[in-house]
Amino acid sequence: MQKLRVLSGMQPSGRMHLGNLIGALQNWIKLQEENECFFFVADWHAISTSYENTKDIKENIKQMLIDWLACGLDPAKSTLFIQSHVEEHAILHLLLSMITPVSWLERNPTYKEQQEQIKNRDLSTYGFLGYPVLQSADILIYKADAVPVGVDQLPHLELTREIARRFNYLYANKRSGGAGRSRAWSGGIESSVAWSGILTEPNALLTEIPKLPGTDGRKMSKSYNNAIYISDPVDVFENKVKNLITDPARVRRTDKGNPDVCTAFVFHKIYSNADDVSQIDRDCRMAAIGCTDCKKRLLDKMKTTIKPVWEKRKELSANAKRVFEIAEAGSMKAKEIASNTLKEVKEAMRI
Amino acid sequence: MQKLRVLSGMQPSGRMHLGNLIGALQNWIKLQEENECFFFVADWHAISTSYENTKDIKENIKQMLIDWLACGLDPAKSTLFIQSHVEEHAILHLLLSMITPVSWLERNPTYKEQQEQIKNRDLSTYGFLGYPVLQSADILIYKADAVPVGVDQLPHLELTREIARRFNYLYANKRSGGAGRSRAWSGGIESSVAWSGILTEPNALLTEIPKLPGTDGRKMSKSYNNAIYISDPVDVFENKVKNLITDPARVRRTDKGNPDVCTAFVFHKIYSNADDVSQIDRDCRMAAIGCTDCKKRLLDKMKTTIKPVWEKRKELSANAKRVFEIAEAGSMKAKEIASNTLKEVKEAMRI
Repeated sequence: MQKLRVLSGMQPSGRMHLGNLIGALQNWIKLQEENECFFFVADWHAISTSYENTKDIKENIKQMLIDWLACGLDPAKSTLFIQSHVEEHAILHLLLSMITPVSWLERNPTYKEQQEQIKNRDLSTYGFLGYPVLQSADILIYKADAVPVGVDQLPHLELTREIARRFNYLYANKRSGGAGRSRAWSGGIESSVAWSGILTEPNALLTEIPKLPGTDGRKMSKSYNNAIYISDPVDVFENKVKNLITDPARVRRTDKGNPDVCTAFVFHKIYSNADDVSQIDRDCRMAAIGCTDCKKRLLDKMKTTIKPVWEKRKELSANAKRVFEIAEAGSMKAKEIASNTLKEVKEAMRI
Repeated sequence: MQKLRVLSGMQPSGRMHLGNLIGALQNWIKLQEENECFFFVADWHAISTSYENTKDIKENIKQMLIDWLACGLDPAKSTLFIQSHVEEHAILHLLLSMITPVSWLERNPTYKEQQEQIKNRDLSTYGFLGYPVLQSADILIYKADAVPVGVDQLPHLELTREIARRFNYLYANKRSGGAGRSRAWSGGIESSVAWSGILTEPNALLTEIPKLPGTDGRKMSKSYNNAIYISDPVDVFENKVKNLITDPARVRRTDKGNPDVCTAFVFHKIYSNADDVSQIDRDCRMAAIGCTDCKKRLLDKMKTTIKPVWEKRKELSANAKRVFEIAEAGSMKAKEIASNTLKEVKEAMRI
């Protein structure tokens, strides 16, 4: 089977934490083994949600690229690039904006939701309303077959598919074929039919992604101040793991614990093997192991996993030039594809 | 006094008619004598109002450029370029979209008005809502001092000024100076203060523009099918002038006429000198001249004016390559300035 072209991006909103790694990033690392992957730093998107504070974007881009490479994204397998270095995204965004009804954007559930939830930022801008149009351009300009998404992002991807269909209907409404990409597809929630047109409707690559809680048991998030960062110094990292919140009802060492309400146990399920997890589950319920020892064991497992990442991080941090060379090479490769698609788009629109 | 940088654009929505020439174009031709002028074919804007029908855009661009040059826009004096050939407009548009409140666009009077008036086109798109953002990018990327506008376009220009102020406030909020342009300004409706920042707030160059009616007496417009085109063949041109609607109450040659309600008389006021106009006014009211003779005289005057334009048009039409070379040279010159501004914008935003 021909490789699928997979595309995804991440906003450079700060250093990455273990939640990002266990969530999106490890999925990407897996995907790059069997697909033609394009992963990009979505720096323009970062502006749309925090235009008042852009001063850290450059540093955030660097740190994110270092995190990506340190964790195992491999430029020999994936094309890693920076959105703003492929200016074709902005042109396609402008062209797609001309055919996208405002109502499609207004009824985008994420738009309303984020405006309600995120109170400390101004999300009432034209650019934020058009976020999904830029996202569509990001995806469509590479004729991506598949986009790894969580359930909450499905409406965005559906919008991308709608925009692609609308474009093809308006400008490529002929039985020509040829220019379009049509590929076998066997996963995800949707099955694709043989298709021809200029823009490819991407499929959702729905992935069950394990969710890692923060040190306080809530969702791990920068804004909750409960995150363990890939780039945390060893002592900070150790302290955070040692201070993971456990079963609050287990006050004394001799009290029996309940792993079901223990944050450290969630970490064990990710970092320890199945046998160890069962053992800890039993021991905790019988008070055969105390929280301190349990977390010490966890820390050992975590450090085994994270150590090579730390080493690679250190190496890359000392050689930022190399990191940007990788991103530049990736951006040039991306640009070649993007400019070809843009050319086809313009031809189809006869402009 | 240092020359003012003046910028304006026109949508390539079809061949230009005498209304366009007498209105905007002759004003431009005058402006280029004393200012540093940038005039562009707004092809991206044309898509935003007629995305369903883009197939004529390329031909319309060519015809418009020919009309411009034939009528007297001089590439030695003005920079003539095509919007889509300076892709920096699209990047600045994207960046400005991030800081422009949707509410500013929704309360734009033209937006509501056009949606109500223009029923045969779909103006409910994201791109049409953002029309003034693209227009702002068009103007601000050249740090234009002045934009020739009609009264109805003042709200658009005010929006551009607001966006420039907002950008400067957010990203250039320091007493640096240097990068900005600050110039003496003595005309228009607004007086400018010494200013420093990255983006220049353009002033309105309000111009009284004579309005030419169509052959039926209504506003000359392509959609009313009452327009006399610069590119009309001689016989078509002659017939249209001969059939200009006159005072409907003057049925017989011996009836006295009323020039105040005569379309041909409006044309005389533009194409004949003051003495002739007074003479015709008198003669018409006394029935000393008939409509046929009056229009024959008008035709002579008009042909004297239009003949060199026709000749230049013929010459240019036979040499389309030369026309595009002029637009390309202009676009390259524009691109140089635009990319400099974009660089400053990115530096100010630290992206």
